[in-house]
Amino acid sequence: MDHISYDMFRRTCPSHTVLELLSNKWAYLAVMALKRGRHRYSEMQRRLEGVSPKMLTQTLRALERDGLVLREVYPVVPPRVEYELTPLGEELAALMSSLRDWGEAHVPDILAARARFEAEKAASAT
Amino acid sequence: MDHISYDMFRRTCPSHTVLELLSNKWAYLAVMALKRGRHRYSEMQRRLEGVSPKMLTQTLRALERDGLVLREVYPVVPPRVEYELTPLGEELAALMSSLRDWGEAHVPDILAARARFEAEKAASAT
Repeated sequence: MDHISYDMFRRTCPSHTVLELLSNKWAYLAVMALKRGRHRYSEMQRRLEGVSPKMLTQTLRALERDGLVLREVYPVVPPRVEYELTPLGEELAALMSSLRDWGEAHVPDILAARARFEAEKAASAT
Repeated sequence: MDHISYDMFRRTCPSHTVLELLSNKWAYLAVMALKRGRHRYSEMQRRLEGVSPKMLTQTLRALERDGLVLREVYPVVPPRVEYELTPLGEELAALMSSLRDWGEAHVPDILAARARFEAEKAASAT
């Protein structure tokens, strides 16, 4: 039984779980930020422009729960909390990087396609 | 000027646009479904379990707008509408597949991490 068959299209499939994780903008950005090294909570907050404290806490907690991020609390005053990727998280970060690289390489194509689409829509409306 | 510097962490950066696209569960599933070949609208609806017609229409429209999906309308009665990936969409689908493969390979690790996390939480609550 080496081979298990998953179907991410089915909401009850465990692989759908992974999809939920990947298709979350903040989780994506958090993993990408931690790819550069460990961060304190406050550093994460500055890095992820526009994230609310509630959303950041939820996101980091979900990543910790799934074994992708390690949370370390240092018993100092005031307490210091740091986050870093686990080896599993590092693997995911590498894959996410190739997606980011592809995206950055194709920003001009995507923006051009959008402009074309809007122009055609405007033309067909007249 | 071959090199443009993007910063996906900034909401005003064009690369953030790509992130928004990628971090949408339905867009991800739609691209993965179309990777297997062209689909009619009704086939997409069956494939993407739980998608509402409104969400599916919005998703396909966004992908078409961004140049990732081609929409073809056949002038028959009743009208037939089919969707397929563009070459750019095929590239994205290939990257998304490696993420899916990674996710499927690590479902057991992720589920085990979750169980550990919940157990530790329960232990620290007593």
